[in-house]
Parts: sequence; structure tokens; C-alpha cells
Amino acid sequence: MRTIAIALAATLAAATPVKADYLVKEVGSFHIGGHTETLNGLPSKEIVFSPGAPPIKVDPNGEFEVEQMYVQFVKQAAPKSKWPLLLWHGGGLSGVTWETKPDGKPGWQQFFLNAGNDVYVSDAVERGRASWARYPEIFKSEPFFRPKKEAWELFRIGPSYEVGGKREAFEGGQFPIETFDQFAKQSIPRWATNDAATQKAYDALVQKVCPCIVIVHSQGGNFGFTAALNAPDKIKALIAIEPSGAPDPAKADAPKLKGVPHLIVWGDFLDKVPVWSKLVVNPTRWGQAIAAAGGKVDTFELPKMGLKGNTHMMMMDRNSDDVAKLVNDWIGKQGLEN
Amino acid sequence: MRTIAIALAATLAAATPVKADYLVKEVGSFHIGGHTETLNGLPSKEIVFSPGAPPIKVDPNGEFEVEQMYVQFVKQAAPKSKWPLLLWHGGGLSGVTWETKPDGKPGWQQFFLNAGNDVYVSDAVERGRASWARYPEIFKSEPFFRPKKEAWELFRIGPSYEVGGKREAFEGGQFPIETFDQFAKQSIPRWATNDAATQKAYDALVQKVCPCIVIVHSQGGNFGFTAALNAPDKIKALIAIEPSGAPDPAKADAPKLKGVPHLIVWGDFLDKVPVWSKLVVNPTRWGQAIAAAGGKVDTFELPKMGLKGNTHMMMMDRNSDDVAKLVNDWIGKQGLEN
Repeated sequence: MRTIAIALAATLAAATPVKADYLVKEVGSFHIGGHTETLNGLPSKEIVFSPGAPPIKVDPNGEFEVEQMYVQFVKQAAPKSKWPLLLWHGGGLSGVTWETKPDGKPGWQQFFLNAGNDVYVSDAVERGRASWARYPEIFKSEPFFRPKKEAWELFRIGPSYEVGGKREAFEGGQFPIETFDQFAKQSIPRWATNDAATQKAYDALVQKVCPCIVIVHSQGGNFGFTAALNAPDKIKALIAIEPSGAPDPAKADAPKLKGVPHLIVWGDFLDKVPVWSKLVVNPTRWGQAIAAAGGKVDTFELPKMGLKGNTHMMMMDRNSDDVAKLVNDWIGKQGLEN
Repeated sequence: MRTIAIALAATLAAATPVKADYLVKEVGSFHIGGHTETLNGLPSKEIVFSPGAPPIKVDPNGEFEVEQMYVQFVKQAAPKSKWPLLLWHGGGLSGVTWETKPDGKPGWQQFFLNAGNDVYVSDAVERGRASWARYPEIFKSEPFFRPKKEAWELFRIGPSYEVGGKREAFEGGQFPIETFDQFAKQSIPRWATNDAATQKAYDALVQKVCPCIVIVHSQGGNFGFTAALNAPDKIKALIAIEPSGAPDPAKADAPKLKGVPHLIVWGDFLDKVPVWSKLVVNPTRWGQAIAAAGGKVDTFELPKMGLKGNTHMMMMDRNSDDVAKLVNDWIGKQGLEN
């Protein structure tokens, strides 16, 4: 096994896309989805918005645009890939997941730009540049802020995090733990009541910019699987990085996805964090249902492929390029240019 | 006057930077500033984060990174400008202000990339990808959500906006009113209690990436003026687009800014929205104080220069490239390459 791992590492080093400059046609963004909501009957307030400026009386009632999402793209002058690549983040995070890593090195956005793709990085409904709406009047619950201890343990950076004290990491883990606080700055409050709106916006995004290839992470898994169900002709391939949820084969029409190649990727230490033994069940079952219907579903268990120590945030791990390379090679083998 | 306006328009059309493809070295981002806060004594909750996933017991107490800001950059392989350009948005908005316009056409980010600059677009503390913190435990007040009526009237798109009904625009206004709802999707909740934290993060940004040229808008004006005061050696030029606030010359040391060229830009219809007669006072007085100390302060009143109909959101107006061109030409005349 050790020999295989070393051989694989050598291959990866040789074949990773070269970080060369690339010719860009446009960097741009848009909001998509959402609708207008109207609030009535709330009391007015007087607020000074800039120091020294006169106070302005503000009426919190009125019309608002809500439940839109934000999408940013980099379009190349001559992309090598026919289909744009969409990167969908996980829960409590924004599109920053895919950008420069907390250690300052290029992330998957740069990797796939270097590999010749037009790349779309989005912020789902409720977070980042998508913005959020007043609660409980519009959003139906209060948000949850993820403490650093939960991120450390749930994302399998290590077995324990003591507030104000010691942080224990998994031996051989690939996350650059010295930059964990920098990663924690990416945290975004999340709601548990916005899934329907989020799905609707993702579906609208697919209709706008696809056919495309979609890479989803964690909570994004369920949105990605469902988006493929809702538009199997638009999603050329779906790559789910540690999806935390998936449709139920008893309720969803897996055979619709016969023509959409799926790849599910799992990192290391899954057996060391009990909740992950539960989280892998639904996506695995969903993949099996698609395969049983004649679809193509591949599963990469990274440790079995010679990549050891990957956390839930594998796009930020030290060997993130190696993981991206495996994904990119898989995409290349799906015959998607036809 | 009409002749001058026509002649100016012809010059602008000829000299706007050509929208050509540009060679990019890196698209990236980082968070800067902020610190750790710890919460104690709040009750636990059980939340299902993805449909079908097992419920997870979450403890809202613990450590959080707060009051950081988000910065995204596009670095060119061979920038024509020696100094990077930083774009700082206004209140209730994020860096999206500078990206693709609500009408789908390229905004100032693209304009200044085409003009040969490395461009940094940021989200200030409390908004967008900078994220926000629990209140009232960490942020000291509740946020305010700007209704569309306020944006329409305060940003001088038109004199009146009737909820659910008619929207009256200023005659000759340059904002593409058919895309106003799209613009409203960019709105971000704002707090009136985060100014000190916001300034601190901006000052840290200046220390990290400058010497630079800074363009600020609206609420960003006061942060930009103060950032220049705090690091006059780092800011090569400051362009304030309709700043809504400024330091008080009786309290701030205007002579420190003798070596920092300032440009203040005002659009049209200022006399038609009463609050603007008040808002122009402080920035104007601050500019006069810098000039009195021997500094260079220019003021562009766009209608007097032949550009009619510009709103507060002039970077989204139909003639946004014409305004950017005036700013870019002004930068070019400051001898900043030395």
C-alpha cells in the first residue's frame, strides 16, 4: 500500500495543472432567484449612519427583495472545457470555501481556472453576498452561529477543542491547523428553515448558466443531488464532496439520473467522529439507487486511494491540489465534450 | 454649456479603456482584522441541518471569530498601474456595488481591470462574505434592513416610490430603473454600532496591501478619509464618490494629508433630495481643510462637467463608464508612478 501511495503522489505532482497566467474575458457577478416581501406595522427609528452625519428617520416597513442567491464568475477568453464549472459550498459557509485557502495558497477556484474552466462560485440564499432577511417576519427562525469547537470537531480537524485552551488534531491530518482561526473567519450564520428557498435559487441558477458541471460540498450535497433531479439534462456531471444529505430513493426518482455521472468523495477519519458514520448513510444509499437504475456512480474513499489525512474541508487541506486533480481526472474520463 | 457637454461626451467615448481580454495571475481572497469572542451560558439546541440527516445537538456557546472583513483581488500578470486599486462600498451594501451592474453590463471592477489595475473589492465588517456576529451579545444593536422605497429616494433614483405601486424617476436620470429590483437584491442589513471595528479592519487592510489608490463610496467616505489620516504614506490617492461623512477639521489633523491627492465626486439631483444638502456639508468642509493646509483636493460636480442625471449609485448608472473615465483620467494626472 505504501508503494502505491508513493507512486500515486509522484503521478499527481507531475500531472497537476500548471499554475500559469490565463486570459480572462470577464470577472462578473449576479443575483438570481428570490422575490419581493412586504412588511407593515413596525415602528420607525432615527439612526445616524455615518459619524457626524445628520440623523435619518428610518421606517423599517416596506418592500424588500429576499431569498435571492449570489453568483460570481470568471470567464476565460478561451476555456479548454466546454462546460462551466459551478462550485457550491456547504452549511455555515459561503463561496469563500473555494477561493484562496486559509493558509494563503490557491484553492479549488484557482485550480479549476488553471485547468481551463470557466468557474462560477456562489453564495447560497441567507449568506455572504446573497444577503439575509429579517426574522422572524421573513426568515422563519433565528440563525445559528457555529462555534469554533464545533467546526474543529465536526470537520474532523481533530478529536477535541478546548475553549481557551488546547486543540488536539488528528495525527497525519492534512488541515493546516496553524491557520484554523483564519478559516473560522469564513463562518457564516445559518438557518435551518431556508432549504426550500435555497433549492429554488439553485434550480434557477442551473436554468440560467447550465449545461454545466457541479461540485458540491457538505450541506450543498443535497441541493446538488436535487438540482440534478430537477434538471438532469442541464447537469453534465455532479461531484459531491462529503455530502451531508441526499434524496430518499423511496421518494425521489433516481432513474431520472441515469445519464448524469455522479462522483462521491470521502476523506479520512470518518470512523473517528461518530456523526459521520450516520452522515455517510443517505448519500451512499442515494448513489446505490442511481447505480441500480443503470446510472454511473463512482465513490472515492481517499485513504484507499493513497491520500491520507483529509478532513471535511479537503479543498483547504495541504494536499487540496491532489484531491482536485483526482476530481479533474474523473471529469476528464466522463466524455462530457460530446 | 451644451456644446461643452457634447464635446466632452465625444472625448469620453474615444478614450474609454478598450474592453479587451487581460492576462490574470491570480483571483483570490482573504479575511483581515477581527478577533476572538467567547460566549457563555446560552442554552443548547437540537437542529437538523440537511433534510433526512440526523439531528445534531448544538451548543451556541464557545469561541467565534468576529469583526473581520473580506477582500477579494484580481491580480494581473502585467498591471499597467504600479499601485493596486481598492474599491470600498457604501452603507447597507457589499463589494457587489463594484461588480457587474444590475443591468448585466460591466461595472467599475471590470473598468479598472481593463484600465490595467490590480483591483481589490472588499466587504466591510458586518456584511457580505465578511459575515456578522450574534447580537446583542457581540454586535451591540440590532441591524437595519433598508426598504426599497428608501433606496429609491435616498439614492436619488427618483422623488417618490409608492409601496406596491408607482415609482417616479427623475427625468433624465441615468439609473436603469427597469433593473432596480435586481439592484435591491444587493442590499445588506447594516448596524449603526460597528464603525470602530470597521475602521480598524480597513486600517489593517491598508497596512497589508498598500501603497494603493482607494475609491470609496457613500458611507465608505468616512472610512476612507480616516484610513488616509491613519496612513497618509500608504494611500497614494483617495477618490470619494458621494461621501456621506468626513472627519471634523476641528478634531482631525488635516495637514497630515498634504501629500495625498483627494477627489470628491458628486452626481445630479442633489438639490432635489433635502438630506443631500446636509450630507455634502461635512465632506466639503473636510476637503477645504485639506486644501487650506496646502493639500490637493479636487471636486467634480458631474452636471457642471457635462455629465447629467447621475444618481448616488453612479457606478451602476448607464453612463458609469463615463464617470469612471473621469476618475481614471484624474488618477493619471496625479503623477503617482513616481
